[in-house]
Order: sequence, then structure tokens, then C-alpha cells
Amino acid sequence: MNAETNNKAVLIIGAGEGNGSAIAKRFAREGYVACVVRRNAEPLQELVSAIESEGGRARAFAIDARKEEAIVDLIDQIEREIGPLEVLVFNAGANVPSSILDETAKKYFKIWEMACFAGFLSAREAAKRMVTRKRGTIIFTGATASVRGGANFAAFAGAKHALRALAQSMGRELGPRGIHVAHVVIDGMVDTAFIRDNFPKVYTDRMDKEGIMLPEHIAENYWYLHSQPRDAWTFELDLRPYMETW
Amino acid sequence: MNAETNNKAVLIIGAGEGNGSAIAKRFAREGYVACVVRRNAEPLQELVSAIESEGGRARAFAIDARKEEAIVDLIDQIEREIGPLEVLVFNAGANVPSSILDETAKKYFKIWEMACFAGFLSAREAAKRMVTRKRGTIIFTGATASVRGGANFAAFAGAKHALRALAQSMGRELGPRGIHVAHVVIDGMVDTAFIRDNFPKVYTDRMDKEGIMLPEHIAENYWYLHSQPRDAWTFELDLRPYMETW
Amino acid sequence: MNAETNNKAVLIIGAGEGNGSAIAKRFAREGYVACVVRRNAEPLQELVSAIESEGGRARAFAIDARKEEAIVDLIDQIEREIGPLEVLVFNAGANVPSSILDETAKKYFKIWEMACFAGFLSAREAAKRMVTRKRGTIIFTGATASVRGGANFAAFAGAKHALRALAQSMGRELGPRGIHVAHVVIDGMVDTAFIRDNFPKVYTDRMDKEGIMLPEHIAENYWYLHSQPRDAWTFELDLRPYMETW
Amino acid sequence: MNAETNNKAVLIIGAGEGNGSAIAKRFAREGYVACVVRRNAEPLQELVSAIESEGGRARAFAIDARKEEAIVDLIDQIEREIGPLEVLVFNAGANVPSSILDETAKKYFKIWEMACFAGFLSAREAAKRMVTRKRGTIIFTGATASVRGGANFAAFAGAKHALRALAQSMGRELGPRGIHVAHVVIDGMVDTAFIRDNFPKVYTDRMDKEGIMLPEHIAENYWYLHSQPRDAWTFELDLRPYMETW
Repeated sequence: MNAETNNKAVLIIGAGEGNGSAIAKRFAREGYVACVVRRNAEPLQELVSAIESEGGRARAFAIDARKEEAIVDLIDQIEREIGPLEVLVFNAGANVPSSILDETAKKYFKIWEMACFAGFLSAREAAKRMVTRKRGTIIFTGATASVRGGANFAAFAGAKHALRALAQSMGRELGPRGIHVAHVVIDGMVDTAFIRDNFPKVYTDRMDKEGIMLPEHIAENYWYLHSQPRDAWTFELDLRPYMETW
Repeated sequence: MNAETNNKAVLIIGAGEGNGSAIAKRFAREGYVACVVRRNAEPLQELVSAIESEGGRARAFAIDARKEEAIVDLIDQIEREIGPLEVLVFNAGANVPSSILDETAKKYFKIWEMACFAGFLSAREAAKRMVTRKRGTIIFTGATASVRGGANFAAFAGAKHALRALAQSMGRELGPRGIHVAHVVIDGMVDTAFIRDNFPKVYTDRMDKEGIMLPEHIAENYWYLHSQPRDAWTFELDLRPYMETW
Repeated sequence: MNAETNNKAVLIIGAGEGNGSAIAKRFAREGYVACVVRRNAEPLQELVSAIESEGGRARAFAIDARKEEAIVDLIDQIEREIGPLEVLVFNAGANVPSSILDETAKKYFKIWEMACFAGFLSAREAAKRMVTRKRGTIIFTGATASVRGGANFAAFAGAKHALRALAQSMGRELGPRGIHVAHVVIDGMVDTAFIRDNFPKVYTDRMDKEGIMLPEHIAENYWYLHSQPRDAWTFELDLRPYMETW
Repeated sequence: MNAETNNKAVLIIGAGEGNGSAIAKRFAREGYVACVVRRNAEPLQELVSAIESEGGRARAFAIDARKEEAIVDLIDQIEREIGPLEVLVFNAGANVPSSILDETAKKYFKIWEMACFAGFLSAREAAKRMVTRKRGTIIFTGATASVRGGANFAAFAGAKHALRALAQSMGRELGPRGIHVAHVVIDGMVDTAFIRDNFPKVYTDRMDKEGIMLPEHIAENYWYLHSQPRDAWTFELDLRPYMETW
């Protein structure tokens, strides 16, 4: 498997249990080699096995996406060993709410580093390759906090707002160069082990009514965005359960 | 053909030459009976013929969508003679820019009446039927003017902002009742006779580079929105050519 | 009192008990002749008396601001009999919430006519005079519904969104011609008889904590906007009590 | 001069030649002790002298606002030696546009650190003091890039979006605790040596027509925001020259 055989690659930064894994599987089903990134090797290996058991191809990269060298090397390696990077999905970052009065500089920085800086590094490196081919898709995962700074969300909303600004800025610069940049605002509960374990009652109540977003349904939108012809591209779409208050 | 046979209907208000026709065809290809509305009977008949020649089903209604009685009767008739109204697409309205200093009360009113009031009438009537079945999709066509009041656009931007407010208000009220309300922001040139005839040079230049949106590509997004499972609905997405400045 | 003596006029459309009256008084204290408009003559006369008792000048016009001829005549009369119209404040319009399923065409239209169409008529007529002098201020009163379409607010949010689009469009066209157009988003409870009478408990609780906006405090912002030098104009500002949830 | 004498302090982080200095002077004229911060001591000393020559009081602090310890110590010192910190103005940060393809990780980080992280540090420290007194004002300087991610602006727009998210988040949490948080969107050219020296022709052309914002006019808005009574606070206002395209 190498670049000669023109195996298209999709890179998912933040290939966690929920959306990240579902997105990787969705693209793998279309023949893309799913390059999946998170810090721990073990769950990544499970994801690769799951994709392979469905007949897809995948590669695990247990790296820290906040490290510039790691990202540069990763994308070099993908282009050299696997094939052209056609799609980047930046899906990393998590919220840990705090009163602004208690927010530590360390956590404020770390949330930005994971949810925004890693996105900058990977999107820049992906874009460098994509512009030479005049094609490619870069999709950023957003949240309610991307467009609203709620109480106790200063750090997460800051990182997510900055990531959306990055997406807009890249979309405006790189659209005319053939790169489709998009931002998905996920505004509601997603079906993950975290929700199941921590909010069992809410989980059951809402799941019964289809009030929790299934990762595979979310993933479908990422594939859809990538599939749009270039005369009619979407920059931003929002996703929420029908019963959500917004 | 009647409600007993459960023929699903899609109603397109503003089934003009470009997007409206393409949306009607797209849903007809999925088996929906395309109920197409505009004021003149002749072009509607051509659209019906085109859909039928592709093996689809369609019905023409040459009515003025600003008239409450006409809309009430239309939706009654569809539900009685054709089948349940599953999808409403409100696609009417056009811009005629003026300096605010020259804008007439008559034109300001008429633009609102066509681009907003007709949308209110048809969406309310459709919603009344849909809530009894706890399902249905209502999609409004928006424009750049839906989110930006540009110089000389007071009338059109007013109508389009109001239509978007209607969509938001309905989405927030009716989402929990099972109705998917969505708003599509079309931000760029669409391939229509109007553009071809009036801006031939720009048309040719941009068409060569895929810089003009094809109605069938736009229509695909309406079908996509309707297809979303209810745990992950999109309220709003934007569409523009890759080369557009925004 | 005539145009020769250069008596500057401010026109307040919607000079109701709360903000409208306070704005009239605020400008009257600066020497402007406050031309106050609402449909009923009686409360207007009280307002004129109140302004005069403070040493100000005012004129009452009991007209229906939705009537083009009435607005054209009114502004003619002001310019002819009183002085140059320096400031227009459009402050009319009220909300009557309804489920979209129950909203009548008549009410939907009327809310738009009062909260938006009257604003278009008066702002256009004022602008025609102001551009000849290359100066003047037009301020529109907005609300939460100007930027958010809440459930059961389709009619009011539609009218308010349209009014904001009008303001933006006029600001972009007329700013370079020396007219300052501004939009004030009032996002919270205002101290009016309506609130006192209908929500006495909430009123008392919040009033004790300064959680209700005083009309004279709101009015101060209108004066402030008018006072800004033209190298640093504000188009939009929001106002809410410190304790408001938003 | 100590806390006993109740000398109110205003702290300006980013007390540069333009807006920062003008804001310091504006508050000093109201009797506040202007505590001015930037990295270089020399221009700060000139600012202190200018304020003192007008009869005001000021203190210079040549520190690096990105350093947590420096900010913590600074605010400790102000509260101990000068008086209660009543107002914080965060005005630091600058843009250096780059194509996303050329943006370095170092610069991307540094722009965020200066324009956002320093804002977080100083606003958090100020808020800790203010909540104990249930009063205080925190004003953040924004820019066009706070609400729009333009091409080549990924770094600056990211930092400014994040700063606005911080402001919103703080406003929502701390408003009910008596702290007025505001964000000023400066959308146009400001009269500074940088503009005069680098764009002399544009400068002269626009200055002749009052098309460049004077720092003292901008500063007036900061004072105005601080002066608003708490039943009617503004979170955000924009400022631009009358002739600006937006």
C-alpha cells in the first residue's frame, strides 16, 4: 500500500469512541484508508480491528496532536506510505466547565491547546498538501460553545470560537483554491459511554424517544459534506435532536 | 390517486425555472407526488410534463400564494385528492434592489408579501396537517439577505430576515412535535435563464470554472435535509460556489 | 416657531408610556422640539404637558404611522412649521405571542405593519430630508426577537428581524452620506404600567433589586448614540439588567 | 496613597499609543488612578507624565501580561497600594496577517497568548476582587476579527473570537454578581502613528473627511459603558467611521 496505488486517505484527529470512530468507519466504507489518531494506542487498535472486520482499511497513530513535529511527521508518513490525504476531520477537544473565578491558567491553556491549537497544526499541514492537488476537504467539529459563550464555559467556548474562526479564515482563503472547509455545530447530547455512565436516567429517557444523537447519524453528515460538488459547498451546518431546546 | 393509497406529497411554492423545478424533480424521483405552485399555468405545465417524462408524478397549481384562501384550499385539496403532505418547500420571492430613498411603499410591501407572508401562510397550513401525524418537513429557501442587510436591499433583506425568523420560531415550536423545519442560505449565483440572459459574460466565465450553482446540486440538499433521522436534524446550512467571496 | 428659527426637531414614532416618552423628554431637555406620535390623542397630550412643565417644547401628532400619506404629511409639516428633523426614533410595535398553528393572517400582518412597515415609511421620509443636509440620526428600537426567533414569536420576531434588516441596509447606504443609523436591542423587562399591572409579584421582586430597566436609563442611550461624533459611530448596542439570563 | 483613602483604580492592559492611552486619560479625568501596563517602560512613563500634567494620577507597570505571576502580583499591588480596582480594560493584542499555509505555530500561539490568554489572566484576577465588592467593570477591546474570520486572519481572528467568548462567558456568570462585562467591536481605522507612517496617503485622504477614528472618541465609549446604571447594561457595541464599508 503506497502512494503509487493512489489509496485515498482520510485523517481523523480525535478518533474517540463516539463521533470520531463513526466518521472513520463511514469513510472506510467508501474505500478510504482511515488514519485514526488519539493519544492511547489501545482503543485505536480496537477501532482499526472493527473497520477491518467490516472489510475496510485503517491505520492507527497514537500521537499527541498538540505537538507540531508529530503532526508534520504524521502527514508526511500518510502521504508517503498510504496515499494522498483527501480528507481531514478535526474532532478533538473536550469541555471541563469551571467558574471563571476558579479557572486555572493551566487548564485554560490546555483546553485551547487540545481543541484549537491541534486543529490549527493539522489543518495547516493538510492544507499544504491539498493545495498542490487543488482538492481536498477539511471538516472541523464544533459545538454549541462555538457560537455561544455560556457561563462557566470560558475556556471551552474560547477554544471552540477560535477553531470556528480558523475554519472561516481557511474557508475564505482556500475555497478558491479548491479546498472545501466546513464546520459542523453539534448542539445536543451524543450517544457515548460517558453519557450512558454518568447520566443513566436522562440517557434512558431520551434514548427511548430518539432524543440522543447517534454517532453514525452524525458521521453521515461528514460524508455528505465531502460529497458536495464544488459549485455548491456548505461551510456550516448544525445538528441537534428534534426534541432539543435551543 | 387519493389519500387512501397513501401517496406522499411534496408541495413546492415558487416552482420556478431554477431551484424550484429541480427540487420538484428531485422529490418526484423518490416517488413523491410533486405539487408545484407558481402564478402562471404555462411553465408549470412544462414542469409537470418533464417530471412525468422521467416517470414521476406531478400536479400543477397556478395560484397566488399570497392569498390565504387559495393556500388553505390548496392544502385541503392535496390532502383530500393526493395524499399526506409530507414536505413543504417554500421557495418564492425575488429581489428588486432600490435605494431606500426611492423605495416605494407598494414594492416594499409586495416583496414582503411574496417572500415572507406567502411563506407564513403555506407553512402554517402545512404544519397544521403535519402535527396531527407527528412528522413532516418544512424547508425555507434563504439567501445572503437572510442574514445581512446590504445597501439597497432593505425590502428583500427585510422579507428574508422575517422568513428566517419564521423558520426559527417554527423549528423551536414544532421540532419537539416531530416536524423538521430547515432554512437553506443560498449565497451565490444560481444557473438560471435570468443570469444567462442578463450577465452573459460573467455567466460564461464562471460556468467554465464551475463557479455557478446548478439547481440540481442545490436540490440535492433539500432531499438530504428531508432524509435526516430525527435524532440529528439540521436547522440551517449555507451553500455557495467554492470560488465565492464571502 | 418655524424653520427660519432653526428649531431642531426629534420625531418619536411610538411615544408610549415607557421608553417613547422617556426618549422624548430626554431630547427635549437638550432643546429639541419633541414631536411625539401615537394613535390616541389623550396620552400624547399628557406627555406634551409633562415636557412643557419641565421647560421643554413638544408637539403631539395623533396619527396612524402605518399610513403612508399620514407620515409624508407629518414630516412635511414638521419641516415646514417646526424645523429640520434631526433625529427620528422608531419605537412602535408590540408582541402578542401565538402558536404558529393558531396565528391568524390578520394578526401576523398587523404586527409586521406596526413594528416594521411603519418604520420603513417613517425612516424613508426622514432620510429623504436628512440626506439633503448630510446629517441626521435614525434610531430603531429592537428587542430580543430582533436576533432570535423564539417559539410562539413568529409574527413579532419576523417584524423585528425585518426592522433590523432595514436598519442595517439604511446604515450601509446612508452612513457615507452622513446619516447615523442605529439599532438598540432591548433584552429585558422595562418598567411600564403593563408589567406593574400584569406581573405584580415579579415586578416587585425585580424592582427591589434594580432588575427592571428604567425608561429614563434606556433613553440615555438614545441620546448618547445621537451625540457620537461621526468618526466613531455605533450601529448596534444591547441593553439588559445586570441580573438577566441571556 | 493606599486602599484606606479609597482611591479608585482603573487598570489598562495594553496602554499603547492610541486607544489604550486615550482610555487611561479619560478615566484619569474622572479621578481614577490610571494603572497603565505595557511591556516597555519608556512610553509608559510618557503617558504617566501626560496624565499628571493634566492633573490626573497614574502609575506605570512595565510587565508582560502573558505571565500569570506578573498579573497576580500586579493586581495584588494595586489593591494594596492604590485602591480598589474598579475597572479593567483589556486592550492588548495585534494582528500580523499570514496565509494559513505560511502561519507558524510560534506566531499562531503568540498572537493568542497576547490577545486572548493575557485577557483571561487579567480578567480572572480582576473579577476575583470585584465579586467581593459586588461591583466593577471589565471591558474588552474587540475588532472586526472578533466576529469574522477573514482570509489570512486565522491567528488574530482565533484570538479575538476566543476573547469575545471569554467576555460573553464572564458576562453571563458575573452580571448577576454585579460585575459589568462589555466588549467593544472596533471596526475601522484608528488614528495611530502606525497608520500615519505606513499609509500616509490613505491617512490624509480619510482624515480630511473624518474617516479615521480618534482614540479620544473611542475612549468616550469605555467611560460611557462604565457609567451605565446596572438596570440597563450594554454587553456589546460596535464603532466605525460613518464612511466605512461593512
